Amino acid sequence: MPVLTKDALERLTRAIFERAGAPADLADRVAQVLVENNLAGHDSHGVLRIPEYIRSIHDGEIVPAARPVVISETDTTALVTGNWALGQVTGAFAADLAIAKAKQHKVAAVSVVQAAHTGRLAAFTDRAARQGVVMFMAIGTVDRPMTAPYGGAAAVLGTNPIAFSIPNPGGAPVTLDIATSAIAAGKVKVAKARHELLPPDVICDRDGKPSRDPSAFLDGGFLLPFGGHKGYALAVIAELLSGPLAGADAFPGVTKRSGIFIFAVEATVFRPFEEYAKAMAATLDRIKSVPPAPGFEEVLVPGEPEHRARQQRLEAGIRLPADTWGALSDVAGTLGVDMKGFPVLPD
Amino acid sequence: MPVLTKDALERLTRAIFERAGAPADLADRVAQVLVENNLAGHDSHGVLRIPEYIRSIHDGEIVPAARPVVISETDTTALVTGNWALGQVTGAFAADLAIAKAKQHKVAAVSVVQAAHTGRLAAFTDRAARQGVVMFMAIGTVDRPMTAPYGGAAAVLGTNPIAFSIPNPGGAPVTLDIATSAIAAGKVKVAKARHELLPPDVICDRDGKPSRDPSAFLDGGFLLPFGGHKGYALAVIAELLSGPLAGADAFPGVTKRSGIFIFAVEATVFRPFEEYAKAMAATLDRIKSVPPAPGFEEVLVPGEPEHRARQQRLEAGIRLPADTWGALSDVAGTLGVDMKGFPVLPD
Repeated sequence: MPVLTKDALERLTRAIFERAGAPADLADRVAQVLVENNLAGHDSHGVLRIPEYIRSIHDGEIVPAARPVVISETDTTALVTGNWALGQVTGAFAADLAIAKAKQHKVAAVSVVQAAHTGRLAAFTDRAARQGVVMFMAIGTVDRPMTAPYGGAAAVLGTNPIAFSIPNPGGAPVTLDIATSAIAAGKVKVAKARHELLPPDVICDRDGKPSRDPSAFLDGGFLLPFGGHKGYALAVIAELLSGPLAGADAFPGVTKRSGIFIFAVEATVFRPFEEYAKAMAATLDRIKSVPPAPGFEEVLVPGEPEHRARQQRLEAGIRLPADTWGALSDVAGTLGVDMKGFPVLPD
Repeated sequence: MPVLTKDALERLTRAIFERAGAPADLADRVAQVLVENNLAGHDSHGVLRIPEYIRSIHDGEIVPAARPVVISETDTTALVTGNWALGQVTGAFAADLAIAKAKQHKVAAVSVVQAAHTGRLAAFTDRAARQGVVMFMAIGTVDRPMTAPYGGAAAVLGTNPIAFSIPNPGGAPVTLDIATSAIAAGKVKVAKARHELLPPDVICDRDGKPSRDPSAFLDGGFLLPFGGHKGYALAVIAELLSGPLAGADAFPGVTKRSGIFIFAVEATVFRPFEEYAKAMAATLDRIKSVPPAPGFEEVLVPGEPEHRARQQRLEAGIRLPADTWGALSDVAGTLGVDMKGFPVLPD
């Protein structure tokens, strides 16, 4: 597999989006977020997505030079339009706005309408946690249903991800970032790219029959919610927060409606920083000290696998499946990006 | 099975708590919440709990005459001590405070320390939704671990419930209220009371072996998180929000520490009420119109089963298992409550 350093992959991503019409600062933001997702081990939300985003730009679903704008705001709330800018730009903009409000006024709620695909939410909620702000984020995808409700036989919800990041003064943020479907659509694409079967009970084919073939989902099938009625309930909450509450349907877009809901709380609103830091460390130690179950080496806290992947990939570089690298090279070639500037390391 | 009307069961509950030392208004609040949980179909968090709460009062873990108090507050935040008052009183107090702040200032975050067992969170978050406020609530139980972490072989977390209620102008609130364990401890107790086996993969015995016998958990075993690493991650988030963030460990109690975290957002902060109501109705209709999967009669939205149970039980009365009724009668007898005033209907 081709291996690239963080730096080379960021520069390549930047070059591609600049050639596709993004100003330098926006191309840079997208590159940072996508490569951060690769570093965290979530290749499904990293540079693998570039060909899809470039297609969306060509189709007019993403406007590469657009910038998100605040429609209305108070000290603790804001309604933002993404203006169909690159989703990674919009996600970071909205998160930064919520962080600033929470730092100044302790709590904040921000909704975003006309948001293009943002990818992995933890890329944004982690920004908050690293700055001392607890952040919750939910997205429902109104016009691209792919997940069936609990007890239902057709797709009506998105993968409706939710994320929660909590500042951890003693280490990496504690971060939950989950699709409320049993599997993320991105992971289905990765499985297809790797020619792998899916786990059982995560998708049905277009006829509603269980399948393990990634193509069965991509050819008109649907995803199942994770954890039965509990994951389904979370999916509905994400749909309602990012849709009816956020106001996504009031701002239809070129081809689809899409909303985001964020709430943020400054982490030392209830107690001094030193006490907070000490209590976090004690609680995380307590959880991690549990003896592992058979088949596990140790107990990890949420966000720890991503933190470890990041350390490892910063050192050893980011390995890309041949299919991904081929697709990236094709897109770069089409846009006139010279691939010689982005050295591939020996695997 | 004995059947009682809502009114008779509330009066009986009130009488028991008054005899146990609660002022009339607090006994009334507890009765309302417990019977509301029975009405919603969640017998595990209804009057079944009374003998346990009375024991906690005798043991000094619950102070029946205590009232929650605000320790510190801003326009949008508050730190509350439950003062080890009856948990249902504390939950309602904290929710009402968050509702009032969200109504006035759009967004609010409230943390509670020294909270006794509150029972079903939806009883509080639904109060918010019925008043036009979105509410999120999380509880971790610091000193009574009963759930293993993902990949771990011992209990370290509580059942760590989370709830989310969303106002629905066209009907009952949409409410998620889940234990992040694969099963609530209360449901294990109900299974034991009914002499039923548990579903597979929800508990282990004290030696870490999977079991379906409710007694295996009650005799030193532990619960598993729901949905694998996803449910575990939610459990950790609930633990951190209600513990280190809320400040629960800074206020130790008679025998245990316990915290609550609440976030509230006024539902029309991003758009006018009429638009919100219309978008909610459209989204819920869309979800409910999905054809049922084999084995299901229709697709329900979260909170709908509880709403239906409530309608049914308001009409037909609340049926109590003989064990529950026996335990209630015993407690009432010990406290000198004359059971003649609470008629049992024909089943």
